Amino acid sequence: MNLIVDVGNTYVKFAVFNKAKLIYKLSFKLQEFKKQYKILKNEYPELKNAIISSVGYLSKLQVECVQKDLNVMELSSMLNFPFNNDYKTPKTLGVDRLALVSASVKQFPDGNVLIIDAGTCITYDFISKENDYLGGAISPGIRLRYKTLNNLTANLPLLETKQPQSIIGDSTETAIHSGVVNGVVKEIDGIIDHYLEDYSDLTVILTGGDAKFLSNQLKNSIFANSNFLLEGLNFILEYNSK
Amino acid sequence: MNLIVDVGNTYVKFAVFNKAKLIYKLSFKLQEFKKQYKILKNEYPELKNAIISSVGYLSKLQVECVQKDLNVMELSSMLNFPFNNDYKTPKTLGVDRLALVSASVKQFPDGNVLIIDAGTCITYDFISKENDYLGGAISPGIRLRYKTLNNLTANLPLLETKQPQSIIGDSTETAIHSGVVNGVVKEIDGIIDHYLEDYSDLTVILTGGDAKFLSNQLKNSIFANSNFLLEGLNFILEYNSK
Repeated sequence: MNLIVDVGNTYVKFAVFNKAKLIYKLSFKLQEFKKQYKILKNEYPELKNAIISSVGYLSKLQVECVQKDLNVMELSSMLNFPFNNDYKTPKTLGVDRLALVSASVKQFPDGNVLIIDAGTCITYDFISKENDYLGGAISPGIRLRYKTLNNLTANLPLLETKQPQSIIGDSTETAIHSGVVNGVVKEIDGIIDHYLEDYSDLTVILTGGDAKFLSNQLKNSIFANSNFLLEGLNFILEYNSK
Repeated sequence: MNLIVDVGNTYVKFAVFNKAKLIYKLSFKLQEFKKQYKILKNEYPELKNAIISSVGYLSKLQVECVQKDLNVMELSSMLNFPFNNDYKTPKTLGVDRLALVSASVKQFPDGNVLIIDAGTCITYDFISKENDYLGGAISPGIRLRYKTLNNLTANLPLLETKQPQSIIGDSTETAIHSGVVNGVVKEIDGIIDHYLEDYSDLTVILTGGDAKFLSNQLKNSIFANSNFLLEGLNFILEYNSK
């Protein structure tokens, strides 16, 4: 049994896989790491291998508490991956992006795939049907846009995410909702259209915390799978354990 | 002669109008306000009326130093405007947006006009050919997006604005440039397309500090005038002085 630990900017996810099958998952705040790990280890004493994907927030002590029990692999660009990495700065490539690309290779092995991860940031990653990872783009996610309108300007309120009713907001609040949410939707639709001009046989995958919120607002039909990243991490763990 | 004072989030602009004609303009940082005002007043002793547009950064003392010499009007929703304001929260409508709408009424009196102001924030404002201002949207501008990727996430560098060479960034830096700049371009193009579906006879105006940088990247042909806001403020000043 494998333990997948996915540490994002705000939350930690635990997932338990029995070979390729996801059997349990849990999301919690970073400060509860030790407590939640103890509970999990008690429930799944068969856990043997683990992979940790962290963009920089997990402490050495938190990693060590898993290393006491399990064979731990930390996700980094030094591992083996099931694709050719043409990225020019592999050391600063977010490890979560390596996991997403691995997941897409497993699920769509001979396709051109654009993976859009709508979370704290929105990342775009493209892998060609020749199995070459070419790179992509990073832009601020929905919450970051709401926050930065409030933090870095004068006079604008901090709002909760809300689907706008119209392109024309007729108040400060509805104008912010339209600018942030319709702005993200138009950005994603436009970037997908741009890729479709270059690659007609393109599969587009939408994932991440805001995927569900966005999926019915986007023009281009796309496939959202909430376990996509976790499946990619498990694939890397199995790929490197052989 | 009229003095126009436009206070943005970062810079102050002075403009001198002889009736409807712009004869001088200057941009400087907020802390130089008193010094620059003294120099200007010396050079243009004929100045009589002034209008101040401030989103909240000008101090009472700075306003008073102009009031000593000139008849000062502070731009607010309480003034008379040359259009019907259907905005539901007029008191929290950024005064710079009132000025942009006034400018568009002066320049395109019987058209449907979408005004896009690409500065610290990107604001979208729509006025119908029936002369009704309906509202619009607010999203983070280019610099805000670069800053928030650095401020509010881990591990991403703060970069200077740069036109991306490709939709696919093949390094962390080029991925950020693509996400921010291509993201803004796709957002603006997408929002213009959305308005064009609803209003085929639409004039789109692009203005603000990033207008020049963006204009050759945008798909939809648009008209950028760097004095647009200043002309709108002068129009309001004349409209309310009668």
